[in-house]
Amino acid sequence: MQTSIATVCLSGTLVDKLHAIADAGFDAVEVFEPDLIAAPQTPEEVRALCDRLGLRIALYQPFRDAEGVTEPEFAQVLRRAEAKFELMDRLGVDTVLVCSNVATASIDDDAVSAAQLARLADLAAARGKRLAFEALAWGRFIDDYRRAWRIVERADHPALGVCLDSFHILSRGHDPADIERIPGEKIFFVQLADAPLLSMDVLSWSRHHRLFPGEGGFDLPAFVGHTLRAGYTGPLSLEVFNDVFRQTDPARTARHALRSLTVLEDALGTDARPVPAPHELDQVEIKAQDTDAVAAVLERIGFAPSGRHVTKPAWLYAAGDARIVLNEHNATGTAPHVAGFGIRVDRPEDAAARAERLGAQRAHRRLLAGETDLPAVLAPDGTEILISGPQSGAAWPGEFAGGHGTPDPSIRGIDHVNLTEPAADIEEAVLFYGTALGLTRESSAELAGPAGLVRSQVLRSGDGGVRLALNVVPPLAERTSTTQRHAQHVAIACDDLPGLIGRARARGLRTVPVSANYYDDLGARFDLPPGELERLREAGLLYDRDAAGEYLHCYTETIGTVFFELVERRDRYDGFGAANTPVRLTAQHLSH
Amino acid sequence: MQTSIATVCLSGTLVDKLHAIADAGFDAVEVFEPDLIAAPQTPEEVRALCDRLGLRIALYQPFRDAEGVTEPEFAQVLRRAEAKFELMDRLGVDTVLVCSNVATASIDDDAVSAAQLARLADLAAARGKRLAFEALAWGRFIDDYRRAWRIVERADHPALGVCLDSFHILSRGHDPADIERIPGEKIFFVQLADAPLLSMDVLSWSRHHRLFPGEGGFDLPAFVGHTLRAGYTGPLSLEVFNDVFRQTDPARTARHALRSLTVLEDALGTDARPVPAPHELDQVEIKAQDTDAVAAVLERIGFAPSGRHVTKPAWLYAAGDARIVLNEHNATGTAPHVAGFGIRVDRPEDAAARAERLGAQRAHRRLLAGETDLPAVLAPDGTEILISGPQSGAAWPGEFAGGHGTPDPSIRGIDHVNLTEPAADIEEAVLFYGTALGLTRESSAELAGPAGLVRSQVLRSGDGGVRLALNVVPPLAERTSTTQRHAQHVAIACDDLPGLIGRARARGLRTVPVSANYYDDLGARFDLPPGELERLREAGLLYDRDAAGEYLHCYTETIGTVFFELVERRDRYDGFGAANTPVRLTAQHLSH
Repeated sequence: MQTSIATVCLSGTLVDKLHAIADAGFDAVEVFEPDLIAAPQTPEEVRALCDRLGLRIALYQPFRDAEGVTEPEFAQVLRRAEAKFELMDRLGVDTVLVCSNVATASIDDDAVSAAQLARLADLAAARGKRLAFEALAWGRFIDDYRRAWRIVERADHPALGVCLDSFHILSRGHDPADIERIPGEKIFFVQLADAPLLSMDVLSWSRHHRLFPGEGGFDLPAFVGHTLRAGYTGPLSLEVFNDVFRQTDPARTARHALRSLTVLEDALGTDARPVPAPHELDQVEIKAQDTDAVAAVLERIGFAPSGRHVTKPAWLYAAGDARIVLNEHNATGTAPHVAGFGIRVDRPEDAAARAERLGAQRAHRRLLAGETDLPAVLAPDGTEILISGPQSGAAWPGEFAGGHGTPDPSIRGIDHVNLTEPAADIEEAVLFYGTALGLTRESSAELAGPAGLVRSQVLRSGDGGVRLALNVVPPLAERTSTTQRHAQHVAIACDDLPGLIGRARARGLRTVPVSANYYDDLGARFDLPPGELERLREAGLLYDRDAAGEYLHCYTETIGTVFFELVERRDRYDGFGAANTPVRLTAQHLSH
Repeated sequence: MQTSIATVCLSGTLVDKLHAIADAGFDAVEVFEPDLIAAPQTPEEVRALCDRLGLRIALYQPFRDAEGVTEPEFAQVLRRAEAKFELMDRLGVDTVLVCSNVATASIDDDAVSAAQLARLADLAAARGKRLAFEALAWGRFIDDYRRAWRIVERADHPALGVCLDSFHILSRGHDPADIERIPGEKIFFVQLADAPLLSMDVLSWSRHHRLFPGEGGFDLPAFVGHTLRAGYTGPLSLEVFNDVFRQTDPARTARHALRSLTVLEDALGTDARPVPAPHELDQVEIKAQDTDAVAAVLERIGFAPSGRHVTKPAWLYAAGDARIVLNEHNATGTAPHVAGFGIRVDRPEDAAARAERLGAQRAHRRLLAGETDLPAVLAPDGTEILISGPQSGAAWPGEFAGGHGTPDPSIRGIDHVNLTEPAADIEEAVLFYGTALGLTRESSAELAGPAGLVRSQVLRSGDGGVRLALNVVPPLAERTSTTQRHAQHVAIACDDLPGLIGRARARGLRTVPVSANYYDDLGARFDLPPGELERLREAGLLYDRDAAGEYLHCYTETIGTVFFELVERRDRYDGFGAANTPVRLTAQHLSH
């Protein structure tokens, strides 16, 4: 599969973009005309740069408003095309995207469009060029790829084919199965974009909200399958107009973009390897120059110090299956934060290879004699993911020696980890964590806090053993608030939270205070058994209920940029108490 | 007219919000339940705070999913309502918003809804409370205010009336004229929100994109007119869910919100004063610790130094009707930037009073003997607006003495001023400049630059004598780019730009380079007269054309955070060469 991307997907100048695209490892590129026009480089220079970078220019785009026009207008179209074919010669590209007329079309007639495209194709063929005709979703008359193909078929010109763009086809709900009725050699180009399933005008949707494959609601593996079965052998090229990617580091976006094509390729089965699904969260690593304050909170919760690492300034705190490593190694000047987490899988090396295939860097871990080799990779957001297997998962805690004390017996394990991502990076993080760790994306929620709406995306393994929540901080609030920006947290599961919290309080644990008004409202919302509301109020616990069960939870104070949640899931409750988030966010906001 | 606002409009905690609302000058407030629930203050404390701040609590909201339910469910509704009426007692509020059922409605029958609302109203009346029933635009069965009124009419209960929300009515395209068929005393509450005319699902539109009156596409003066003619005498209350306002300074948003009600009041004619429309841009003030570099550019353009101010370290540069004041007064440590501009109107004091009525602060200007008194106000973004009249406009340049030299005769005046606004502040800036200066909002454009899409909003006076453009910088790009953030500029109009630019270049002026590819594309797009393309290329000018005329322009280098555009409008061209903006933004990006 040849990979390609349009320069319009990325921020920066044309030269910035070409470097980013080549560095990420793409085979080819679509040159978006406005990028070339604004560039100080001549077309010859751009061509030479692409040659040096090993990038093929697969498409020049777009050529607009070419058909369905009056004869005087068409004379101007031919004049304009002549200039563009000359430019394409200089650039060394043979295919141009011709999109269906939006602005100047006045004749709604397949015969006229076919005849005009054939005359344009004559001109193109004389210069060794080809036209890929695309039906825009908002074309004045031609807005369906099947009609575009009928016109191309009718024009019957060797220099004229179609361009198929997944957005223009799937956004209109057109059945992509008819692609298989187009001969493969007449599909001159395939462009891919995903998009969230929004109900809005298709032009705004297209111009601002496109996403890379796998991030939205379109079935792109099925779409690409139709093009392959039709016999298409050209590049799969990303054309994603997205307000965020236009503003952020092009090198990072390009890696992210290629990752989406890798995921798509895997989904197509051309290089399928089963993703090893993780069983559980094996550990969480919290890093800081000084982790004492975190250690104190963990001991108050009910963790016991299980020992110091034999070679590193790191300590393991454990209780039940919850293991938290406090690491002061290479952490000069940093406040406590979640630096990484571990997952337990059946075949750790396969899982690490999968993550690397998706562009994750292998993390360096110095291995001394007798230490367990846990493969580790870095997520795009810098989080370290340690991968343990049946043996290594049992072995690594043995590297910590000198533990003492007994953990609280109520603690069971790590319920979930909640990381925060900047708004610019959330799509990348969701795509990476989901596909690299084999987690399923659940519906996202928007939670109102005093500094704005916090978008939260939950990812989970099939059996719920691994739950990861990614929170997006309101971007404008970064200017005014530091509270929500760093709201990473680790949730600890227990059997009997009222009992645990009583003992933890006796050990000195402080939790985020819950307003009295919250309990008044809780009593109004839920018809709780007698005494239950009072017990929750006295214990300072938050409560949620759904048809499957109940959820009790509370939060510790924040140390550095991390805090802990204590949770008890009753019966089959599978949520996160989202309705209580505004209360928690406000209380945290007030405590800063 | 009593003014009110819902706490949900603002960021921060409930106490933050109440202070901001009172400080802005509102009469009343709607308490949004989640704000109260999350607050550590008791309802009694909130009540006492509102008393002290002089804020009446006009509404408690929302009470959801009350009617159209089964009897067992309705028993729970009554139970929940009982708790809320008790809470309202403590809070000292007598009206609660009951919105039409979204989640639990199973019975689509006016008789059932009316009977259940009447029973709820019995309970309310017994506690001295009233229910304002509102049809949500996405109500399960009741989504039209006319049906809500039919149900209220049928229930015929003194403690039951309707709440009318402009968004829920106008977003669905329902005719607001039928409001006049509702007796005024049965309209218990009126909520106002504007919104851009988007084509998207109404729930997302409502939750994220509402705006204050005058900022969107709804005719709110007409809407309010219907409620007044119906006999409504209660508060006009803003309920605006907006992602930006949720994240930004509540005090500033509250002032902005009240300004929108003032504008609405003026439009209703209850306190109408004609806005003095400005005739021209009288001056632009550029401030810096050291303005020498700006002076050098102005002299190269063709301005002549018209003298130094008699009492301040400020210099006037003039040419034709263009006057630029370079001010080093109180500017320690600042780089050159547009600190203010002047407008010429018929009655300066009326214009200043109008701006003050819209919340602008009067700017302090120390007036010494013999100096002209130009009233000045500060826009919310800090820009100083100096207001001159027929006499004072002629007089103030006389305060500058010691000028020399002759300006280039081609320069005519100031064509437009382009200010940049943070994304968080654009709605406020557009509302303020438009209404305070009597400018009309033109359609906005989105311009692609190397660091993201730049949204540009043009405001102009009726005769085009004053043109102001407000650009919004891509918010995420602030992290990576400094180029676009400060792209303020002043456009100088001239008669013969090719002639002027030749002389200016001879005086040493440097302009932003235009790519060769731009001219190739220009030749393809426009069939220019022979030699014209070459003349533009040699002069380094950008070109645009529409049906009304032509536009030639170019840009100087940036000094500090300001640059100059030189423009020639031929015939009746009325745009800004927006198609050329990507070329300019890229060239500026490359020069940094």
